[in-house]
Amino acid sequence: MIIDCHGHYTTAPKALEDWRNRQIAGIKDPSLMPKAGDLKISDDELRESIEANQLRLMKERGLDLTIFSPRASFMAHHIGDFNISATWSAICNELCYRVAQLFPGNFIPVAMLPQSPGVDPKTCIPELEKAVKQYGNVGINLNPDPSGGHWNSPPLPDPHWYPIYEKMIEYDIPAMVHVSTSCNPCFHTTGAHYLNADTTAFMQFLTSDLFQRFPKLRFIVPHGGGAAPYHWGRFRGLAQDMKKPPLKELLLNNVFFDTCVYHQPGIDLLTRVIPVDNILFASEMIGAVRGIDPETGHSYDDTKRYIEAAKISAGERGKIYEGNARRVFPRLDAALKGKGK
Amino acid sequence: MIIDCHGHYTTAPKALEDWRNRQIAGIKDPSLMPKAGDLKISDDELRESIEANQLRLMKERGLDLTIFSPRASFMAHHIGDFNISATWSAICNELCYRVAQLFPGNFIPVAMLPQSPGVDPKTCIPELEKAVKQYGNVGINLNPDPSGGHWNSPPLPDPHWYPIYEKMIEYDIPAMVHVSTSCNPCFHTTGAHYLNADTTAFMQFLTSDLFQRFPKLRFIVPHGGGAAPYHWGRFRGLAQDMKKPPLKELLLNNVFFDTCVYHQPGIDLLTRVIPVDNILFASEMIGAVRGIDPETGHSYDDTKRYIEAAKISAGERGKIYEGNARRVFPRLDAALKGKGK
Repeated sequence: MIIDCHGHYTTAPKALEDWRNRQIAGIKDPSLMPKAGDLKISDDELRESIEANQLRLMKERGLDLTIFSPRASFMAHHIGDFNISATWSAICNELCYRVAQLFPGNFIPVAMLPQSPGVDPKTCIPELEKAVKQYGNVGINLNPDPSGGHWNSPPLPDPHWYPIYEKMIEYDIPAMVHVSTSCNPCFHTTGAHYLNADTTAFMQFLTSDLFQRFPKLRFIVPHGGGAAPYHWGRFRGLAQDMKKPPLKELLLNNVFFDTCVYHQPGIDLLTRVIPVDNILFASEMIGAVRGIDPETGHSYDDTKRYIEAAKISAGERGKIYEGNARRVFPRLDAALKGKGK
Repeated sequence: MIIDCHGHYTTAPKALEDWRNRQIAGIKDPSLMPKAGDLKISDDELRESIEANQLRLMKERGLDLTIFSPRASFMAHHIGDFNISATWSAICNELCYRVAQLFPGNFIPVAMLPQSPGVDPKTCIPELEKAVKQYGNVGINLNPDPSGGHWNSPPLPDPHWYPIYEKMIEYDIPAMVHVSTSCNPCFHTTGAHYLNADTTAFMQFLTSDLFQRFPKLRFIVPHGGGAAPYHWGRFRGLAQDMKKPPLKELLLNNVFFDTCVYHQPGIDLLTRVIPVDNILFASEMIGAVRGIDPETGHSYDDTKRYIEAAKISAGERGKIYEGNARRVFPRLDAALKGKGK
């Protein structure tokens, strides 16, 4: 089985975006604020948006199951206040849940949280609980910078975030560290902010004792870990200068990287540098990069081709495709086993 | 000849740091503010600080010449106002100039600028002119985020920065894009802020028409280009989705990467992905990572070993070691030719 651990619902029916635009307009003019119930999307519309897009590509590429969460750039936690984010998160999480209900063999949901800049993360717990208990979510996406590029929340090892971590441990779910749209003109969203956030989070973990305090906490650092694997020697050396244990011992029971790296040399580096047990297959399609690479004739984000061509064994490939995802997402494993898979 | 294009004066005599601490104290209490002339460092002290450190390692490693600039993390443009930065820059640039005078075959200076958050970059021009005309500097370090991690200056393609670019073209000097200390607790200085700035600047260039406007502008993106080479497919794909020309045409007449990547797999990726004409040898020693890699028995920052082991030809190695630096730093080339080198 091939599990793609990083897919977003980027192809939701246009009605979702229209509703969001009305909600944003309603922040300034409350008379324009829509109700959650105003959004009507039928099962047929959901089916169509998936069958023509993600599911079509999954079949073409030979992927079985996508761990599926709301569109990352649309989370936009910086917009409005907690209530705005809460309504928006509930809507987006419900849609991913419905997709998973419609295609139970192909999609399983991961939740966005109703984060809001300056608001205590414990306000996210009710949505998190609903997502896990009612909707069967197997993980969450955690935004380390709900401001959208101003980076004015405490670093991830700060007790500020502990309420989320305590729930993650209680439910045995991992978090993917994933920012949303940048509203800082210095940072291009998918070309800088995403990768910077990955590198930043990794270094926050490295300099902290978070995993001594929470040994069961698990994070996926997406987009191949940002700059971390390419600069693995730098990070090993920085940890060493700080008298920390080796990275494997310090971080690699708790930190995992996905394979959203859109060319063969990048995947070759990732699989050469990072222990295979810490790599989870992912493509983040249909996402940041949608074109065909003229150097290969295939989609940039068809990452399975790079994994197939990487110099690793069949057993290692199996871990990247399936085994590691089952281990990092125990609720996914349980759901699959419940279906005899 | 082997030219290291990225060295900072990290080993300056303690008197420099003491003076800076007095200057910082003087911001709050003007009665404590030292005069520039209060700083006394003899030629012997300079010689000792270099001979025991950078020059010793250059000889051990077989490096001939270092392009030498003030300590990056000490630039700290966020401290005080323009006048504070102006005095501090003048002092630091003078010291690097004196080092270059004392060791004319081994060091040639690059200047820091007296940047200050929210201050027009054209205020940096007098120091830049002095550095080039009087001190023989062959380039500058440009900080895209003088706030130290708050990223509230305009992106590098913004006209805000044009006064600097016009002088760079007039003097035919490149800039290394280099941030300084992070005062944002989210960003570790050398483990996140530096690499993020590299990625950020690269993406700012990619999304702009800066090099159509200034075809002769040249930037070095240090630390191996941050995350850019590892995610080269992502960047190629993003440019393609934006209907931009291929990266080679869009950026690679103007953007160069150094080799400050502290392990073999990283350098192997860099030399595999980036055209050899765009790679300049560098180690940034004695800098961010000072230990011995237990996997190799050699210093992490002994980057020459990685270049020696990379699968490139002798001619390509010569470009990385010398030819590209002479091309990107024409004033360096002229200075060397003036000495018959």
